[in-house]
Amino acid sequence: MSFLSHLESIVGQVDGAIACSVMGFDGIAVETLQAPAAAAQSASLEITTAWVEYANILTQLKNAAEVLKTGPITEVSVNSEHLITLMRMVTPEYFLVLGLKPSGNYGKARYVLRVTAPKVKSEL
Amino acid sequence: MSFLSHLESIVGQVDGAIACSVMGFDGIAVETLQAPAAAAQSASLEITTAWVEYANILTQLKNAAEVLKTGPITEVSVNSEHLITLMRMVTPEYFLVLGLKPSGNYGKARYVLRVTAPKVKSEL
Repeated sequence: MSFLSHLESIVGQVDGAIACSVMGFDGIAVETLQAPAAAAQSASLEITTAWVEYANILTQLKNAAEVLKTGPITEVSVNSEHLITLMRMVTPEYFLVLGLKPSGNYGKARYVLRVTAPKVKSEL
Repeated sequence: MSFLSHLESIVGQVDGAIACSVMGFDGIAVETLQAPAAAAQSASLEITTAWVEYANILTQLKNAAEVLKTGPITEVSVNSEHLITLMRMVTPEYFLVLGLKPSGNYGKARYVLRVTAPKVKSEL
């Protein structure tokens, strides 16, 4: 299964999903899928800009976790007025990121990312 | 109602809560409450150290949100192996932060912070 199939599976399963990526901590996306409805909007472009910023912040959180005794970071979510962003660690170099409408299914999104992360990991 | 009463109410309602604070974005806590069981552990000290780090990262997210068109940040969660941290914006200067065991009630924690934030805001 390719990365794109995994991303299609995530976006297909989660109500309100706008876009999903496998990203490196350097902010460069390995693969990105935008939900068909979202792709028509210029909003999706803004999202990938946001994710580059978030990748940088996630790197800092990861480094902080190494110093603090909280154990490795597994998941981070950033909820803003117009966008929910969920990030799930895959390897020390890569993570999955999913953008959702605020009305989207947050619980299902967390679950689907958790079960998909090991599948993506096995292909990296 | 004082800040401490709000923090007591949050910690009392959420299974697995370890500690809760009203914090400034400068990383200085206005008021902190540790759950009685957690206060006995040295772990709770580590948590407040983590929060100072998180406050700094939250400030960056807040600044990023002003540039990006995602709207203001409302909630951020950082889940690591031994600790779930939920942060809820209260005002542009202050936020509520709650530390939970990974086995704690995440959904209830989100709900309780969401309804308590306006009460804390009205006293700031």
